[in-house]
Amino acid sequence: MATTGNPEPAVDGGFSVAPANAPRKRVLVTGAEGTIGTAVREFLADRFDLRALTRQPVSFASHVADIADLDAILPAFAGIDAVVHLAAASSVSSPWDEILPDNIVGTYNVFEAAARSGVSRVVYASSNHVIGMDEIDNAPALYELSDPRVFDEASEPRPDSLYGVSKLFGEALARYYVEQRGLTAVCLRIGTVRADDDARSLDVPEPLESLTPDQRRQRIRATWLSRRDCAELIAAAIDAPVRWAVAYGISNNPRQFWSLDGARRLLGFHPRDSAPR
Amino acid sequence: MATTGNPEPAVDGGFSVAPANAPRKRVLVTGAEGTIGTAVREFLADRFDLRALTRQPVSFASHVADIADLDAILPAFAGIDAVVHLAAASSVSSPWDEILPDNIVGTYNVFEAAARSGVSRVVYASSNHVIGMDEIDNAPALYELSDPRVFDEASEPRPDSLYGVSKLFGEALARYYVEQRGLTAVCLRIGTVRADDDARSLDVPEPLESLTPDQRRQRIRATWLSRRDCAELIAAAIDAPVRWAVAYGISNNPRQFWSLDGARRLLGFHPRDSAPR
Repeated sequence: MATTGNPEPAVDGGFSVAPANAPRKRVLVTGAEGTIGTAVREFLADRFDLRALTRQPVSFASHVADIADLDAILPAFAGIDAVVHLAAASSVSSPWDEILPDNIVGTYNVFEAAARSGVSRVVYASSNHVIGMDEIDNAPALYELSDPRVFDEASEPRPDSLYGVSKLFGEALARYYVEQRGLTAVCLRIGTVRADDDARSLDVPEPLESLTPDQRRQRIRATWLSRRDCAELIAAAIDAPVRWAVAYGISNNPRQFWSLDGARRLLGFHPRDSAPR
Repeated sequence: MATTGNPEPAVDGGFSVAPANAPRKRVLVTGAEGTIGTAVREFLADRFDLRALTRQPVSFASHVADIADLDAILPAFAGIDAVVHLAAASSVSSPWDEILPDNIVGTYNVFEAAARSGVSRVVYASSNHVIGMDEIDNAPALYELSDPRVFDEASEPRPDSLYGVSKLFGEALARYYVEQRGLTAVCLRIGTVRADDDARSLDVPEPLESLTPDQRRQRIRATWLSRRDCAELIAAAIDAPVRWAVAYGISNNPRQFWSLDGARRLLGFHPRDSAPR
C-alpha cells in the first residue's frame, strides 16, 4: 500500500486514541446524580474532565441549578467542550406538570445555553419510548429469540407516553440546533439501564405491567444496557466524528429488536456485556 | 362483480356524502380569527356547525380564552365532534417565549381538553417547516419546473426553526393521543396560505429572504394553497375515515415538491385551484 505521508492513527478497539499529551475534553453532565450520570462518573472520570450539574446539592462537586432556569445554568457551560444531557423526568408515567419544566423547557435551556456558550457537542439522552408503541403492540412475541423484527432510526415516531413525546421534541430540537445554530449532536435512544446493573430485574415500564414474570425476563434480555456499556456508548457519542446522529443503545444481548447498526456505524460503539440467555 | 350485500355509498367527487337529514358535525376552531380560521368560517359554515375559540373578543361568536390555560378552554369542548386546532405562534421567526405557551403548552391543552371531553377527531395544523431545511438546502433549484424532487411524510424531521420544532412536537403529541388516549387525528403540513389569496406574493419565510423576486415567485408557484383549497383540505381531514394521518397541503400547482399523495389517498383531497405558471 502506498504511503500517503499521513501517520496511521493509533487504534484501540476501533477507536482513535488522542495523543497522550492532548488535554482531556471538558464535559458537563446534567443530572449527574442519576442512574446513568453515576455510571458516567464511575467509568469515564479518567477519560474526560467531568463537570456536574444537579438540581440539588450532592456528595460530589456540582453546579447546583434547575435546568428549567436558563440564567441559573448558563455559568456551568463556560469553557465546556461537550454536554451530556441526562437530566429529565425519566418515567413513562411522568405527568405533564413534570414533563413540561424538566424535559421540554429544561432541554430547550440546555441546548440554548450550549449554543450561547460555544459548546460544540451535545449528547442527548433520548429513549426507546419514542417508538414505545411498536414494542407494546408486538409484545411478548417480539421478545422471542426467534423473532426477526428489528426497529431502527427510520421507524416512524410512535411514542407510548408524554415522556416519549418529550424525547421526540428533544431530538427535533437537537436537529434544529445542529442545522441552524452551529452545534453538533448525538441522540441516544437508551435501553434499560439499572442502578444495580441487574439484567434479571422484573421491573418493566407501566404500559407493559401485564407481562408475566417470564415475559419480563425475556424483555430485559432484549433491552438491557449494562452501566459499563452505557458509559462507553456515551464516550463514543462525545468523540464520534459526526455532525448529527440518532442511535439505539443496548448491550450485546441474545435478542435485539432495536438496531445497533447506527451505534456501530456512526459512533463506533461495540458493547462488551450481554444479558443472560 | 359479486354483490356483498353492502349498499354502495353515495359519492361526490370521491367523498362519502352523509344523508341529508344527518346532523352537522359540531366543529370547534381554535384561532378562528386567523388567516386559515377565516377561510374555514367563509367556506365551511354551511357544512359544519362551527364554533370558535379565540384569545381576544372578535366580531363573531367565540369562546374567548387563552389556549395556554387548560381550565379556561375546557368548557368550549363540551359536545364537540371535531376540533380544528389552528391557534399558534405561526412565524418561523417566533421566539421561544411565544412558542412555549402558544405552540407547546397550548397544543397539549387542546389535545388534553379534547380527550377529556370525548372529542373523536382533532385536525392539527402542522407545517411544511418540520422539514424546512430540505427546502433551504435545495433552494432555488428545487423550485424549477424541471426539478423532479418531491418530499413526503417519510422524509426525516429537519425543522428550520423553533416553530418547526414545535410542529414536530404537536405531531408526536397527536400520535400519542391517538395511540393511548382514544382520539383520532389528522396532521396537515400546510403550504403557503395568504389572507389576500395572492399567489404572486413576494413574501417568504425569513430563512429564504436572500431569494430574488423571480425566485420568490417560483417558490410560491410551488407552495401556494388557496384559501378555498385550504378549507376543503380541512373539511376532508374532519371527515376522513382514518385513525391517523399526516399529509401535506398545497393547491394543484405547476411545480410540487411536497407530495400530495397522502392527502389524496388518505383524505380524498383534490385541490381545485392552481398557482399561476
